[in-house]
Amino acid sequence: GHYIICGFGRIGALICKEFAAKPLPFVVVENDPLVVDKLAQDSYLFLRGNATDDETLLKAGIKKAKGLISVVTSDTENVYITLTARGLNPDLYILARSGEEGSEIKLKRAGANKVVSPYLIGGSRMAQAILRPNVMDFIEIATGREHLELQIEEIVIPATSGFIGENLASSGFRRETGVIIVGIKKASGKMVFNPESHTHMEAHDTLIVLGQPTAIFKLEELVNCGKCADDIKRHRKNHE
Amino acid sequence: GHYIICGFGRIGALICKEFAAKPLPFVVVENDPLVVDKLAQDSYLFLRGNATDDETLLKAGIKKAKGLISVVTSDTENVYITLTARGLNPDLYILARSGEEGSEIKLKRAGANKVVSPYLIGGSRMAQAILRPNVMDFIEIATGREHLELQIEEIVIPATSGFIGENLASSGFRRETGVIIVGIKKASGKMVFNPESHTHMEAHDTLIVLGQPTAIFKLEELVNCGKCADDIKRHRKNHE
Ligand SMILES: [Ca+2]
Ligand SMILES: [Ca+2]
Repeated sequence: GHYIICGFGRIGALICKEFAAKPLPFVVVENDPLVVDKLAQDSYLFLRGNATDDETLLKAGIKKAKGLISVVTSDTENVYITLTARGLNPDLYILARSGEEGSEIKLKRAGANKVVSPYLIGGSRMAQAILRPNVMDFIEIATGREHLELQIEEIVIPATSGFIGENLASSGFRRETGVIIVGIKKASGKMVFNPESHTHMEAHDTLIVLGQPTAIFKLEELVNCGKCADDIKRHRKNHE
Repeated sequence: GHYIICGFGRIGALICKEFAAKPLPFVVVENDPLVVDKLAQDSYLFLRGNATDDETLLKAGIKKAKGLISVVTSDTENVYITLTARGLNPDLYILARSGEEGSEIKLKRAGANKVVSPYLIGGSRMAQAILRPNVMDFIEIATGREHLELQIEEIVIPATSGFIGENLASSGFRRETGVIIVGIKKASGKMVFNPESHTHMEAHDTLIVLGQPTAIFKLEELVNCGKCADDIKRHRKNHE
């Protein structure tokens, strides 16, 4: 499934950049002719039209889309787009931007799964920049693509992983890769923080990990491997 | 030293709330009579006046202030406030909000130490909500005051701490409190990520820690204690 991004303003452009880097398939819906010129230059897939029209969203493939992101400037239009999109696809993941106070509730009521308010986040970030400046630096480094020293990522354990049933200590993950597992979102939906070394891993758990990108990549390969768990154990035994 | 918050809009109000919760001393400068009414209701210390005037900033105690946060709506005014404030106090920490693209550079040139753009942060957050939803939840829980299961905090090691010269393993921090140390900002300014157990602690290092608030509080007490390092060692020896 692909994503539909409605609006190519400052926020929309930023989302496109992140999606293109991953890469994640997406199409932009934009009506402003000047902005459409910019879109064509960035060579993103786009559709000229109004995202509040059924027809435009149908053309953008809303029936088969995985998600829609509504980031036009006006709250009224974001509510209208959300309502239209929800009507056309009840299973769609809808993420919407809220500007003015009070629009969060309206966007949720219209069918948005998640609402982000740049003002609230910006205010919180500014307070934290004074209250916990080093924590903020740490998080910016861990979440930013440009800082290669550290990354925070999530890794899903597939049903075919050789590590199912192992605990964090017996898996050898820390010793083999140097990555820290700071949380596990259990398949049940429960989040376990700072999991202890005897915590067992189950299929479809999501590991929240902190480490160097290359180390995280190595851990991803291990987790997705069926026979690596046995290999690591045999290797360790031979060296004891 | 206190902080001067210029502008009590959505972002300014949010910063005041966080500062009042810590608590951190601050005074708000606001000119709009309607907004001033709201300030009086919230019982925050405030000054009615224009933050672009030397006189107003002098009345707000800028000569002795620790920092100034410029969060009025207009970029032009934020630049002007930053320029005025820097002229009155060369040592002041100035944090400014940027709205339109391109104002970041002007705010820095005017003398801001750090510039935050709610649009950039909002866009990045929305992309991450799709790319790494569990990581985003984890960070929201760790940085939000309302979630008591997990906190990320920073703890400075004072020159009088009994743990100076110890390494992370010998300190017993993890065993005694359950807190994970995910980073150390060294006194030199260098940030060490996922520090290894043999990493030594020096005076004025800042520990970046992840754990339950009560556990972090316990670790703070340990770090600030002169004789606890010896107590822990003696206690451990007696139990061996
Ligand atoms: Ca990074
Ligand atoms: Ca928390």
